[in-house]
Amino acid sequence: MELKKNIELLGQLKTNLYHKDFLLTWEKTDAELQAILNIALILKKMREANISPRVYNSGLAVSIFRDNSTRTRFSYASAANLLGLAVQDMDETKSQIAHGETVRETANMISFLSDFIGIRDDMYLGEGNKYMREVGLALDDGYQQGVLSSRPGIINLQCDQDHPTQSMADLLHLEQHFGSLDNLYGKKLVMSWAYSPSYGKPLSVPQGIIALMTRFGMNVELAYPKGYELIPEIVDLATENAKKSGGSFGITHNMKDAMQEADIVYPKSWAPFHIMQQRTELLKKSDKQGLAELEKACLANNAQFTDWEYNADKMQGTKNQDALYMHCLPADISGVSCQAGEVSGDVFEKYRIPTYVEAGFKPYIIAAMMFANKFEHPGQTLNQILESNTKRFGV
Amino acid sequence: MELKKNIELLGQLKTNLYHKDFLLTWEKTDAELQAILNIALILKKMREANISPRVYNSGLAVSIFRDNSTRTRFSYASAANLLGLAVQDMDETKSQIAHGETVRETANMISFLSDFIGIRDDMYLGEGNKYMREVGLALDDGYQQGVLSSRPGIINLQCDQDHPTQSMADLLHLEQHFGSLDNLYGKKLVMSWAYSPSYGKPLSVPQGIIALMTRFGMNVELAYPKGYELIPEIVDLATENAKKSGGSFGITHNMKDAMQEADIVYPKSWAPFHIMQQRTELLKKSDKQGLAELEKACLANNAQFTDWEYNADKMQGTKNQDALYMHCLPADISGVSCQAGEVSGDVFEKYRIPTYVEAGFKPYIIAAMMFANKFEHPGQTLNQILESNTKRFGV
Amino acid sequence: MELKKNIELLGQLKTNLYHKDFLLTWEKTDAELQAILNIALILKKMREANISPRVYNSGLAVSIFRDNSTRTRFSYASAANLLGLAVQDMDETKSQIAHGETVRETANMISFLSDFIGIRDDMYLGEGNKYMREVGLALDDGYQQGVLSSRPGIINLQCDQDHPTQSMADLLHLEQHFGSLDNLYGKKLVMSWAYSPSYGKPLSVPQGIIALMTRFGMNVELAYPKGYELIPEIVDLATENAKKSGGSFGITHNMKDAMQEADIVYPKSWAPFHIMQQRTELLKKSDKQGLAELEKACLANNAQFTDWEYNADKMQGTKNQDALYMHCLPADISGVSCQAGEVSGDVFEKYRIPTYVEAGFKPYIIAAMMFANKFEHPGQTLNQILESNTKRFGV
Repeated sequence: MELKKNIELLGQLKTNLYHKDFLLTWEKTDAELQAILNIALILKKMREANISPRVYNSGLAVSIFRDNSTRTRFSYASAANLLGLAVQDMDETKSQIAHGETVRETANMISFLSDFIGIRDDMYLGEGNKYMREVGLALDDGYQQGVLSSRPGIINLQCDQDHPTQSMADLLHLEQHFGSLDNLYGKKLVMSWAYSPSYGKPLSVPQGIIALMTRFGMNVELAYPKGYELIPEIVDLATENAKKSGGSFGITHNMKDAMQEADIVYPKSWAPFHIMQQRTELLKKSDKQGLAELEKACLANNAQFTDWEYNADKMQGTKNQDALYMHCLPADISGVSCQAGEVSGDVFEKYRIPTYVEAGFKPYIIAAMMFANKFEHPGQTLNQILESNTKRFGV
Repeated sequence: MELKKNIELLGQLKTNLYHKDFLLTWEKTDAELQAILNIALILKKMREANISPRVYNSGLAVSIFRDNSTRTRFSYASAANLLGLAVQDMDETKSQIAHGETVRETANMISFLSDFIGIRDDMYLGEGNKYMREVGLALDDGYQQGVLSSRPGIINLQCDQDHPTQSMADLLHLEQHFGSLDNLYGKKLVMSWAYSPSYGKPLSVPQGIIALMTRFGMNVELAYPKGYELIPEIVDLATENAKKSGGSFGITHNMKDAMQEADIVYPKSWAPFHIMQQRTELLKKSDKQGLAELEKACLANNAQFTDWEYNADKMQGTKNQDALYMHCLPADISGVSCQAGEVSGDVFEKYRIPTYVEAGFKPYIIAAMMFANKFEHPGQTLNQILESNTKRFGV
Repeated sequence: MELKKNIELLGQLKTNLYHKDFLLTWEKTDAELQAILNIALILKKMREANISPRVYNSGLAVSIFRDNSTRTRFSYASAANLLGLAVQDMDETKSQIAHGETVRETANMISFLSDFIGIRDDMYLGEGNKYMREVGLALDDGYQQGVLSSRPGIINLQCDQDHPTQSMADLLHLEQHFGSLDNLYGKKLVMSWAYSPSYGKPLSVPQGIIALMTRFGMNVELAYPKGYELIPEIVDLATENAKKSGGSFGITHNMKDAMQEADIVYPKSWAPFHIMQQRTELLKKSDKQGLAELEKACLANNAQFTDWEYNADKMQGTKNQDALYMHCLPADISGVSCQAGEVSGDVFEKYRIPTYVEAGFKPYIIAAMMFANKFEHPGQTLNQILESNTKRFGV
């Protein structure tokens, strides 16, 4: 059986994911990332074969969304439910939680019978990931001091630096599309800025993509209009990763040129790093006028780059005029969801279904992160699940 | 055992409910409606006998409420939970979804591991049911294209045309009250407009009632003050149904006369069809002043018909002065929830408990719709559940 | 095995908790309170030993929060989930429910397939507990009249009089800290008012503490600045309880003096009884100006008592300079969560972990209240759970 083989391969990977939070892909080894992909795929196949990988008879998965979300919210709920956990939302409008003492306390108060805490916090540069670590330290302390009988795992559902459940779902999509991780070697992937009529989109997706995809021997090109820089440390990381993996990493400032001979394109808008820094300062000071002025200036600046739209003309130059188009969704589609946006209507339509397939991996990636956190030998446990053969649906 | 007999009867019905959405009762055959009633009753008896009809080890039931709800929300949650599904609310204030491209995408994004989508969308005439079908087509497409591993079923939790979970619960109430569907033959049911101090109540309940009850040989009379018309196509449908079933259908404009010799009365307010059309147009244009003027004019018009209250005087003329009073709740009760309303306090109190019993069928009707959608041979599956005899509660 | 012994002890207690709501500790016998403590501890140990005390295959636990909450909300969700119930929130902003007819109806509408209703209603003096009883009567009626197939149990999650899930968690904390309930005999507990920069904090915690702790032979001292009285009937109750239990109960008006030789201190702010009465009247009349004036006057009055802070100086006089500090959390911590508050930063930090441990008992107390309501012989059922030995987590 194919599942048996997947599980066998998983057993060969040396990993240290047990009882570890999943906060940044670059804190994980290649083997660990491969393990997550494998587990995700196994869980997906199990569910499709009506085998229930439910490992919890009861338990809570807490969610803290400090920014709106549909896709990730449903992915998290689906993953938790698949493993047998109920989602309990920590609604900060109903109960304000902040940094400092309050984080330490609240982290414990919501964790007495909880197995996971999923956090989205992507609004403030320099804050989101820090907050997750603050929660983590509070949980460590609570566990060590006997307050908590177990230490809930933390899943980063998007922060200011990385969006690991997205980038890992994207990687699984690539693995499935091209047949294997090995087949990604030498492929050209273009992570490109694209025009959007909105402003202030987080940096975590492009950062997550360049930091992750450079690890698999791909030739990754980051394209954006001058001024739309990402966090410098993460760009440095991508450069190093590419060196180690035998791929390459470069930055260019012309969308059409960048697309030449691309195997994979990821055109997506983001706000410049230095703008996000200013914005964070203004948000902290609640400077409404400053924020309004910044937004106005940014939109005016954006408006110079409406030609950064991915369309038939740009696609023309890609490998076989048919590079795989990727997006984390929702995309700003010209003539559909906005007048002028990240991608033309016809090109989006051509790759619409693949972007849905791409999104469909996210629930399983999250479930895999949970699974690897809680089982020291995930392969063995997955084998037991296979043998117990409990139906997900039916009598 | 009585349950065995109910299941046997179910096995004799030829139905085509498997993998079909439940959007309008008039898209279903009589046998199919009977099957839903039977399954609902069996599930109710099972639960009361502490037998758990849980058929899902995990899975999500998504809810989309585009209008407020307590009763239907709890009914949907109860049905989902009874079968083993967790409810995941799609909160449109947190993540705006609209028509068109967005519907197509969002429908897929919330469905990767979902088994049902329950939708209430009753605010806009000509829109609610259309929206449900749009979601359905998006799911069909997603399933056919391999995005979704299964096609979630859609349950109409109230639209602009029908309120099938309500009308079917009402029908089950009548079946139980009068002993059988056959016993409904020849009974007189009056669906009457009634005065309410509020405005803009949906048409789906009276429409659902006349379209459904005319199919069982009843003499259905629709009573309302001139001007308070329902959607003409649905009135035509009721006329046809009555012809086929050997019952009758008529429209009158005097509440007291209509009630003469009635076996069943359903006095409930609604807004006139043409007003709802105007209101929909104004809502689409966000014309606040227009809406305010329309409301004012409507309330003034309503105020002419405060004598359309169901009370002892009206009840006096009904069969044995004791027609079964029905309502979808909450009713506008004169002297209780408002100064003057749909029903007098004393008459409501007399039939209060039966209206609660009526409401109590809804969770089981929804569970039955889900069950019939997912099991090709529901009778066989129910037998298996009976044999497995899993306790809902206890060790 | 230790668990076996705990269960045996439980079997010796004569209780009448079966099918009874838990609304006020003073409606329960000592044996009943001990049974709740025992069950809570057994459930906690079971979960820590990875034994699942899940007794529901499906079912709903409704929550009605008429005031904000994080701790109690998560505790209720955790308890429900541990026993196998899904939480269904009754959101009154989405569906306004009020007193009178509406309560009677809504109570039934949300209960068709529900096993518990947890209610927090602590804003209006004279109203919260009354509302819970109104719901209870409506459920009794619905059950007797055949509307409901079972009668959901009600758990008081804080009302105007008592906060039994808090005070019982506090009592379990004391039992665990001092080794047994018997060891509490003769201990001095000071329930003291403390300064807070906020206003309008409910009376239920201090009232719940003095009413409960006086039943176990403790010497309970209630300390507050003149004018900060609690509900007189509950103060009388504490006096009687102390007499019966062989302890004592007294009221003093000097924080430092009160703390002398205390074994346990509970410094916490509250609003004076007569102010809460005025506030309730103003809230009922929606008198915004009146409320603003009352708040201003109260804060000015509070400000006279900033020296009512629990700190090293006050701690100095307690037994071995080390009385057990308790708080229901969150505390107003001077220099941490506010400039000047209920407790100094250093003293809070010293007892921070114990307050977390204290809070950690609440989910199990709620689960125990549920368990005792639904099983006539909880000891027997707990033995069955122990024997069935179902894992909470694992394959």
